[in-house]
Formats: sequence, C-alpha cells, structure tokens
Amino acid sequence: MAEGRFTDKLRGDNQTDVRAVLKATPTPGFVLGDVEEPDPSNGWVLLKVAAASVCGTDLHIYDWNPWAARRVHPPRVVGHEVCGEVVEHGPGVATPALGTRVAVESHIVCGYCDECRRGDFHVCENTRILGVDVDGAFASKIVVPVANVWPAGNHVAPEVAAAMEPFGNAVHACSYGDLDARTLVVFGCGPIGCAAIAVARAQGAARVIAVDRNPYRLKLAERMGAHAFIRAGSTPVDAQVIAAAGGLVDCALEMSGSPTAIVSATRVVRPGGWISLLGIGDEPATIDVSNDVVMKGLTLHGVVGRRLPATWERTTAYVREGVVDVAALITHRFALDDIDEAMALMKSGQCGKVTLSPA
Amino acid sequence: MAEGRFTDKLRGDNQTDVRAVLKATPTPGFVLGDVEEPDPSNGWVLLKVAAASVCGTDLHIYDWNPWAARRVHPPRVVGHEVCGEVVEHGPGVATPALGTRVAVESHIVCGYCDECRRGDFHVCENTRILGVDVDGAFASKIVVPVANVWPAGNHVAPEVAAAMEPFGNAVHACSYGDLDARTLVVFGCGPIGCAAIAVARAQGAARVIAVDRNPYRLKLAERMGAHAFIRAGSTPVDAQVIAAAGGLVDCALEMSGSPTAIVSATRVVRPGGWISLLGIGDEPATIDVSNDVVMKGLTLHGVVGRRLPATWERTTAYVREGVVDVAALITHRFALDDIDEAMALMKSGQCGKVTLSPA
Amino acid sequence: MAEGRFTDKLRGDNQTDVRAVLKATPTPGFVLGDVEEPDPSNGWVLLKVAAASVCGTDLHIYDWNPWAARRVHPPRVVGHEVCGEVVEHGPGVATPALGTRVAVESHIVCGYCDECRRGDFHVCENTRILGVDVDGAFASKIVVPVANVWPAGNHVAPEVAAAMEPFGNAVHACSYGDLDARTLVVFGCGPIGCAAIAVARAQGAARVIAVDRNPYRLKLAERMGAHAFIRAGSTPVDAQVIAAAGGLVDCALEMSGSPTAIVSATRVVRPGGWISLLGIGDEPATIDVSNDVVMKGLTLHGVVGRRLPATWERTTAYVREGVVDVAALITHRFALDDIDEAMALMKSGQCGKVTLSPA
Amino acid sequence: MAEGRFTDKLRGDNQTDVRAVLKATPTPGFVLGDVEEPDPSNGWVLLKVAAASVCGTDLHIYDWNPWAARRVHPPRVVGHEVCGEVVEHGPGVATPALGTRVAVESHIVCGYCDECRRGDFHVCENTRILGVDVDGAFASKIVVPVANVWPAGNHVAPEVAAAMEPFGNAVHACSYGDLDARTLVVFGCGPIGCAAIAVARAQGAARVIAVDRNPYRLKLAERMGAHAFIRAGSTPVDAQVIAAAGGLVDCALEMSGSPTAIVSATRVVRPGGWISLLGIGDEPATIDVSNDVVMKGLTLHGVVGRRLPATWERTTAYVREGVVDVAALITHRFALDDIDEAMALMKSGQCGKVTLSPA
Repeated sequence: MAEGRFTDKLRGDNQTDVRAVLKATPTPGFVLGDVEEPDPSNGWVLLKVAAASVCGTDLHIYDWNPWAARRVHPPRVVGHEVCGEVVEHGPGVATPALGTRVAVESHIVCGYCDECRRGDFHVCENTRILGVDVDGAFASKIVVPVANVWPAGNHVAPEVAAAMEPFGNAVHACSYGDLDARTLVVFGCGPIGCAAIAVARAQGAARVIAVDRNPYRLKLAERMGAHAFIRAGSTPVDAQVIAAAGGLVDCALEMSGSPTAIVSATRVVRPGGWISLLGIGDEPATIDVSNDVVMKGLTLHGVVGRRLPATWERTTAYVREGVVDVAALITHRFALDDIDEAMALMKSGQCGKVTLSPA
Repeated sequence: MAEGRFTDKLRGDNQTDVRAVLKATPTPGFVLGDVEEPDPSNGWVLLKVAAASVCGTDLHIYDWNPWAARRVHPPRVVGHEVCGEVVEHGPGVATPALGTRVAVESHIVCGYCDECRRGDFHVCENTRILGVDVDGAFASKIVVPVANVWPAGNHVAPEVAAAMEPFGNAVHACSYGDLDARTLVVFGCGPIGCAAIAVARAQGAARVIAVDRNPYRLKLAERMGAHAFIRAGSTPVDAQVIAAAGGLVDCALEMSGSPTAIVSATRVVRPGGWISLLGIGDEPATIDVSNDVVMKGLTLHGVVGRRLPATWERTTAYVREGVVDVAALITHRFALDDIDEAMALMKSGQCGKVTLSPA
Repeated sequence: MAEGRFTDKLRGDNQTDVRAVLKATPTPGFVLGDVEEPDPSNGWVLLKVAAASVCGTDLHIYDWNPWAARRVHPPRVVGHEVCGEVVEHGPGVATPALGTRVAVESHIVCGYCDECRRGDFHVCENTRILGVDVDGAFASKIVVPVANVWPAGNHVAPEVAAAMEPFGNAVHACSYGDLDARTLVVFGCGPIGCAAIAVARAQGAARVIAVDRNPYRLKLAERMGAHAFIRAGSTPVDAQVIAAAGGLVDCALEMSGSPTAIVSATRVVRPGGWISLLGIGDEPATIDVSNDVVMKGLTLHGVVGRRLPATWERTTAYVREGVVDVAALITHRFALDDIDEAMALMKSGQCGKVTLSPA
Repeated sequence: MAEGRFTDKLRGDNQTDVRAVLKATPTPGFVLGDVEEPDPSNGWVLLKVAAASVCGTDLHIYDWNPWAARRVHPPRVVGHEVCGEVVEHGPGVATPALGTRVAVESHIVCGYCDECRRGDFHVCENTRILGVDVDGAFASKIVVPVANVWPAGNHVAPEVAAAMEPFGNAVHACSYGDLDARTLVVFGCGPIGCAAIAVARAQGAARVIAVDRNPYRLKLAERMGAHAFIRAGSTPVDAQVIAAAGGLVDCALEMSGSPTAIVSATRVVRPGGWISLLGIGDEPATIDVSNDVVMKGLTLHGVVGRRLPATWERTTAYVREGVVDVAALITHRFALDDIDEAMALMKSGQCGKVTLSPA
C-alpha cells in the first residue's frame, strides 16, 4: 500500500475540513475519511460540493476490475459527476462569481495535443479524468479547472446539475443526425440511455424503442418517454425491434457495449441510417461490414464524452430552459457517508441515477 | 440451360445489329454473340456504345462465384461501365440531344421506396444493376433510363467517360470529410483506390499512403500521386502506415474489403478521424469497437455506389474541367471480341482500368 | 382575351366532368367553370381532388398584380396546394396504387438543368409551378407528374394533406440549424410562419417569439406554440424581441418579406447565429453587412420551396406520425364554388390556412 | 495627450530592451521608441519577435480614421501579425518549449461569454485585439496568451509564420463549402483575397476569377493561381464575371467590403450557391433579398477572424505541409525602423503582404 501518499491525503484526526470517499488501497471497496482541503492553482477554482452522482465507472473502481487496477493509482478521491458552488478562485481566475452554482465537465484536457489543437478536445490524448486520474468529486470540497465549470442556473437543483455530465453524453449521442420525426432504438437503458430517450423525444423523435435486459430500466425508459420496450436476453432482438418500430429504424443509439447489440444495431437500422456507439464493453464485435455497413451505406459514430464546449452549451440550455426533465432520471439519494449502500444499489441495477449529498 | 430465353436474345445468324458479351448459361465464362437491338421504353434512351470498361464484379460473374450464381439469371448481357452516344429517345424523352456523348450510372433506382423518397437513391431497395439484373454494357448498343445518363462533354475520351462510374465511387468515398492538408491511407489500390488517391490529391491532401498486396498496383498508386507505398502481406501493416505518415492519419479509405485492413484502419486513424468503407469482402471483421471506435471518437462511413445526383455532378465537373487525369487509370485496351483476353488480364491483377471497344 | 385557348379549356355546356377555378382573362378575379378532363401523359397521374388550400400567391393572381400579369398566361386553372386520390396512371407509371391519397409538390422540375443535375431541384431553372405555369389544383381533377405525389397516409385528413405543401416550406426553413433548446424569432405569422413555430417547438426550441402586424395571426401563433407575441408597426421591434427573448436570439425565421424585418433579423440574432429568409417582398433591404453580418459571423439562408425529396420525406413523417398538429393551422373551409368568398377572407387577413372542397 | 500613461511605456533613454512602433498620441502617424519589456502573467508567454507583417487595419490606425479614433487608446504598441520565439513562460505555462517558433492568433478571447461557451470563440463579445486593444506586435518582444500561439514548425520562415494570421482568414473563408471542381469569383485581391485564391486552387477549384480595381493586385492574383482577371471600375462587373467563368459561379468570396461587389456576388452566384462575406466597408449594401437570395436559395456566410482552434489547425497544416506557397504573398520586406516607408507603400496599394523585421 502506498502509505506515504496515503497519509498525505487521508488523515486520521478530525482537524481537516474535507470529507471524502477514497480508493485508499489497490483492493476492492472505498474508504471514507478526511483529507486536506486542496488549494486551487493557476486557472483552477475550489468548489463546495452541493451534490454528486454515481456512474458505472465508479463501480468498476469500487470492484477494482482490471481496467481500474491498471488505470487508478490509490490513494485517490473518487467520483466525477458533481455540482458545486464556487468558493475560491485560483490565481488568474475572475469568474464565475463566488457563490455561483456550477456543473462540472469531468475530463481535464491538455489543450496542446494534436486533438486539442484541432478542437477535438473530447479525444485529448492527455485527458485526466476527475476521480480516476486526479482527485475527484465524492468529497465536500474539490478543485477543478475553471474551464471545466458550467454555471447551471441557481434555479436548477444540485443533483440535476451533478447529473449534467452523464446527461451531456446523451445530448452528444443524439447530435449526429436530425431526430425530428425519426424512429430510433436505444440499446441499453441505464441513465445515459434513458436520458437519450428524453433528448430524442425533445427533438421530436416519432417513435423510440427501448431495449434492456433489466425490467427496472425498461420502466425508467418508459418514464423518460420511450414508446415500446423489449427485454433483451441471450438472442438478438432484431425481429422484435423491427416489429415494434413498424420497419427498420432511422437510427440506433448503442449504450450497452454488448457486441450482440452492436451487431443488432447494424441490422435494424435502415439503409442510409446511422448509429451512435457510446457503450463500452469487454468483447470485440464481429460485424458483417460488407453487407451490414458498406452495402447499406450506414454511418457509425464513436461517441466519447462530450464535445467541448459545444455539448455543454447545449446541455446547459436543455437544463436551464427545462426542455428535458432531468430530475426524472434520479431514483435514489444517499448521504456521502452511505457510499457503500449506494454502491450496493448500483450493483443491483435496480436504480436510475443515484445521487450523493456531502452534507 | 434456359434455352427459350436464350434464343430470344442470342441469335446464330448475322441479321441483328447488336454484338454483345453474354453470360449465356449458369457456368463460368462469357459468350460473344449477336442479340436483338433493344427498344427504349418510356423514359429510356438507346445508346450506341463508344467504350466500356471492366470491373471486378464482371470477373465474379465470369467466374460464376456464389454471389453471381445467386444473383444473375442467364442469359444476361454483362458489363456496367460504359460511355455511349444517344441515338434514340424513348417515349417521353427529349434530352439529351441525339448525338450527345454520355457516361452512365449503372444503378437503376425505383424512385418509390423509402430510401428513394428520402433522397438516398444510392441505397434504393429495388436497385437493378446494369449487366447484373438487366442487360448491360458490353454490347454495341444498350438501353438505359434517361435519368442514368450524364453528358460528359464531347472533348472527353469515350474510355474516360466509361470509367466515370468507378471514378465516381472514389469521388463519393472522398466526400465524407475535408481532405485538404490532411494525411490519409488508402487500403486497396485497384482502380477505385487509385482514383481516390488522385481525388484526394486534387482536394489538397498533404500526404497519401498507399497499401496493396500487388506491386503492380502500388506502381499505379504512385502514378496517381501517392507519396508512400506499403506492400501488404499476411500481417497488419499498422506500424508501417504510421511510420510512413509520420503519425496517425486523419482518414482511411478502405477499398480492399479485407477484415485485416478494416481493423488496421481503426488502428491507424487518429482520434476524431474518419474511415470510408467501400471495399467488399467475404469475411466479417472483428473490431474492438470500445477501444478503437468509441473511445477514439471515430466515424465509419459505409460507401456504396454514388450519391445521386450529387456525386455524378461532382464527378462530371472533375472530368470536364480536367481536375484529375482519369485517363492515367487506364492501362489496357481491348476490342469487345477479345473479352476472354481482357478477363484473363483482370484475373492476373497486372492492370489498372481495362477498357473494351465495341467497334 | 385569348379566346381560342379559352374555349379549349373552359366550356359553357355541362358535358365535361371537371369543375375548375380559372384565371380566364388577364384581369382581376377568377371564373368558375367546367373544363375538359386532362389526360395523364408519360410519367404523370390523374388525381381526383379531395381538398385544396389557398396561398397568398393565389391572391396575387386573383388581384392580377404586376408579378401575376408578367408570369401567368390565361386561361389557366389556378391553385397549387392540393390533396388527391390517384385515379389513373399515365404511361410508364405503376405506383402509387390507384386509390392512394397523396399530397402534391407544386413545383414541376426539369431534371436536366445544372441545378437539377447537382440535386438542387428546388432551384431548378425551368421550374413550372402548378396553377401558375401549368393548370393547377382548384379543380375536381388534375394531372401531375408521379414524382410530385407523396402518399400521405389514408388516416390523414385531405385538407391536412393539401396543406403539406406550405407546411413543407416551414419544415425546410427550420432545417438550417439545430433548434433544440434554442431561442428564435419568427417575423411574419401567416400559415408558413405559424407552421414554423410548431415545427420549431416539435424540435425542442426553448423559446419562440412571434412578430406580426396582425393580431389575428398572433393569436394563431399562440395556438401553434409561440411563447411571446410582438405586434409590429412602423418602427423596428428589435428592443421588444430582445426583451421577450431575454437577450439576442439564436435564430430568426424571416417569413414576411419586409425589409424592416430582414434588417431586424440581422440585429436581434446573436453572433454566430443564423437567419432563414423565406418571405418575399417588393422592396430591397439595406443591410449593414459589415457590422451586422460579417463582424457577427452570421449566416443567412435563402429558403425557396422544399428540398426535393428530402423536405417532403421529413414533412410526410411529421404528418404521418402526428408530430405536429397541422390541422390547427386550418381556420376556414369553403366549397370550391365559394372561391370568391374564400379570396375575400384571404384579403382580410383574418384567417390561417383556408381550404377548399371540390365536392 | 495621455502623458502619464505614455511615459509608462515609451522611454527616452536607451536602457530598455524592447523597441516598438507606437500610436503615441491620438493623431495620425506612428512613433518609434523603446518601451519596458512586458512580463508574461498567468497563462501568457513572452515572445522574441522574429517577423511581423502589416495589415490594412494598421493603416487605419496610422491614418487615425474614425474607427481607430473610437477604438484605440494611445499610447499603444501597434501590429497584430507576428511570428516569435517563446523566450519565457508566465505562471502556469509549461509549453511550448522555450525556443519554439510560433505564429500568433491576434484575437484574445474571454472564454466566458455566451459565444465562447458555445465554441464560437471567433465572435467572442469581449475580444481584445493585439495592437488595437492591447499592446501589439510591432516590437522586438511581446506577450500573448499561450492559447494564442501556434507552433509553426522551425522549417517555416518567420515572415511566412507571421502571415499565417491573415492566411487563416482565407482558409476560414474557403471552409463554407467544398471548392473541389468548383468555379468561384474573388472580389478584392489584397493579401487575404490572394491567399484565398491559392487555398481554393489547393482544394481543387476548377476556375477562379479575380476582381480588383488595382492592376498590381490582379498580377498578384495571377501569381497565386487565378485563371481570369477583371479590373473593377465604377460599374458592376457581373457580365464580365459570368463571361470569364462560362456561366454563373458556384461561390463568391467577397473580400473588398464594397457594396457594389456584395450585390454583384448575389447576382453572379448560381442558384443554390454560396457567398463568403469577409470584406469590411463603410457603406451598407442594398440587396434585392427576394430575388437574389430567397428565390435563388443562396447562402451568405459572414466570415470574421478564424474559427478557434479549427482554422488554425488547418492553417498550420497548410503551411507545415507546404500545400500552399504562402511566401509568394510577400512582396516587400522592411526593417521595423522603416515603418513609415512601409506604411507609405501600404497606402500606395502597390504591394502584397509587407513584412517587418525587428532586428
């Protein structure tokens, strides 16, 4: 165990003012403790956390799966979906005004790599992710670059502002083709899939088919506006999707990462249609590229993170103007101290977005 | 053998005026013979063929591979790349003027399916292909819908006009992203791949890497303007492409249909880049979608045929204005009667575009 | 008066079966009479008219304004917004099936000019407009090219299907930028402006400001979903628009043709925003291009007709799927015989879409 | 005269190390003098200037025209086109490495206004321009935000790197539509117009028509690749443009700011075509919007500055890869001390890009 670094961050006494959830050692589980209040450096701000929410990635870190073991270096404060109030400006920072409620982009980009130089900040080669590569959001206070904070409007509930990060993934996934009067299928109805259903409906989608293995999530999909619901099992659901849609669909949003779903997407989308691929899985997909992509003239878009700043500007407008009811995604609320309970619920899959309150 | 239909078309005497290359029976090989001159029906025109050219698809029909055996119903006049002179208007047709030299789009679309209704004519569900589903172009006269003919300009050589059909595939493949000052790799340097190299250069591409198994084709790639040449073998050429390009490339044009090349394309394109998939192969590709598409934010475009009419308008401008030297693609010329010799050359791979002269 | 041609078309006896509204002579007014049933030629179909609707252009022809006097050659059956049932196929036509209810694109394009060749059919140099350049839709039966008919779905009311032509203008005008979560202003709340309000709302627009001189139309704008209403007078409404929107707007839809409105559009749209210019007026506009367009990085889109076929495919989907309630645009219904009454109402401006029933 | 501020900046002795060209007082002319070396603050870098170049805006400031008198507050170091070597990092800056040769974006954006938040940095509401709103580039050393510097490659000549700023305007203006195999007209053949000619040719434009009042500039247009040359006078050149192009053109690039040219652009562009409006003039333009924009389905793009970072990434690639010979734009070179001579030449119009050397 990296004891030296650990003690820098996590203190046994009660004299520090930041309470945090940490991956303290390279083993499963989280630890709750007090850490030193971080100082905002040049171009950063200090936030008092108002709400955070839990992502599947946090569960991978909690479980210490191979990806996490490779990428995360304990001790690390975890969490990356967060809303806070600006309480201190680092050097060179003048806005937003102290007291402003902000949502937070979780990817800290370098600004200098080739991708950043061409404006593709979302695929920055040197991205550092909050709660993965740097200390994160499950804490009472955090520091982030000022470029990563987005004033959400003070009328927006903190847990909604925290959820703007994953909601932005959905906005991004829905941005690769006009959805008005279109028919689409969403594979994977976790919070991002369900948010995408709501975004598609807000953009005027005529018919949305939801697919998931989990009946709880299909219920959530219904709440967010899907018209038809298909429970996925071990065999492809192509015929059911086509039947529910009344034919091939214009667009598929792949939010599950399942190779079976990826292949189904290429089968159920009509010639000339498009697929947004956002789900991450462990297995490669074996695709009949000649027949299912080339001959059909399909387009497949890999969707990672949020386009910076374009997706955030749109996401902020959605939330500020109330175009989508993001609060409907939130099914459970926990105190930060009850993190183990929150993680157990996440593992059960019987939830939508789960939020944490640091107070 | 479908003797009845055969005798309708192919006559033993010398009284008919149309000489044609036919798939006469469901067996390998072509037959040369005389068939009745077709009448242009409503909306169609009769063309006196000035030049035709040979495509890999013709070779599949010649060899009578499984695809051909399933799709082609002999007797069938083959061939679909052609330039002709308008010699008769069918009912309801007034233009182009008799005597106009035209290139020909080989896909006859229905205009009524959902795809046609949304303007995606290139993926028409009821497409009939010249020389595959209806009688084709290796003949002294042919009939085609007037909507399929494109005046090429009388200053354009007939064999260049015939090659506008495959050249248009290259123009289409190059239309999915701006190539000016970009670096790209072309997998597969047959005539379409080589045409794409020339189109990319004409659009200002800074560096083009050509990949093929065949040294003859790499020579042709050099003639069309590629900067670097990689001979593909049994193992991926990823490292060689990256070395030749000086880093990851902006774009890959996949013209080979090889699963190995498709996977390489996802590996050598930089985050945020794009791939045009045009090659058709027999095997599916096993793609690490999560790491090589989603996390990299790649876009993959299935490219089939030519966008109608947009690609043809652009292709016509390229040829009419001399922006690309399409004639450089043409390496061999045969009389129609020497079709067997032309097919043997095609099979050898020691050629670029091979043209046929009906006279 | 062109007596010879007139008698060809308009008969005094009762033996013909087509009742029609004609511009019979080059003077104000319309004449109601019986004309010979037209025959569908190659590629055309005969429709039994189920409903038609009246456009401002019909009023110009009725009033015989300078544009009409220059363009229309009496005797001419007028009208171009129409829904019919296919009752006869001309030569070479097999679909849609007899009995199919169809909406009709009013612009008959040549297919051969440079614009058609590049797919910009909506700006065809040789466009002939139904009821303007060829006999039109205010009749019990009409002929149109099969390429101009769009199956609307038999569940769609005939007067809604007739209104799909102007509704399509609105769909087209709304297609030049994403409207989800955006703020926009619509100058001119006639039927197209009001339809655009509904389309923008369907696409997720956050706030729509309606501007018109006519209180009746502002009421209609409210019914279609606008959030704020500004009555235009003799001075620019810039400050009112900005106040109602809470700042500069993302987009302006200019549907009035008024130079004052055009200039206002350039003033109230935020830097980087866009304007769809659809309204036609008699006067040029004096625009501060340097300050209001260049320095602001605005984009101005001239919007004419409907993109063919893309706008129709989308319009059909909107109506078929019920994404927008097009029927709400229709405020008055007349029998064809009451055309003078309908025109008087049109002139009063106290109406939305006015429909005609031939029966 | 603002004596107090002046003495802060401009010193009579020889002890400071920065030589600079200043607008010292609110009157015509520039003053050459020594000023204190600026310190790079948070996020800024200090550059040793390797080359600068002169823009028409500098001439406005020199002449002290109404715009300059309103906007510029002396004393001010002028100049905004510059190449330098990074010699000191301000706090929080680690790259580019000291010694790196960089081109400089002249617009310093806030990052917080609505426009910046949506990624439209080029229309930032709080833009400060180098040499206009803050001290500029005609000096031996300057400070700029690190976000504004672009490594140009050490093989690129300093005066070429300095000219990347205006060259980027040309790249931006050429980015609003595909120019391959297209015909276009360029109104105004100053350095940006001439650069646009070269960019259009690099992108495969088939035919470029150059229009200017000044024969010297038409010569420069020829050197950069234009095919035809029209000398503008007091009457519109529409007929000459159409004759030279062989018909209406696909695209116009308006680089002159002349209302006559703007109107001509709307007349000579074909239906469905587009116009990039970049030139700034003193007079509004009276446009027949109905006939020349709406009915033709034209699109007009206001083009200001460079899209950040996208245009710079492309501009850098053009220069680094040698796709365009930017050096050909540079016709005259002066020492910084000979600034009056350079301004006199600029005023004569007998020049292309004029560069200054600080050494």
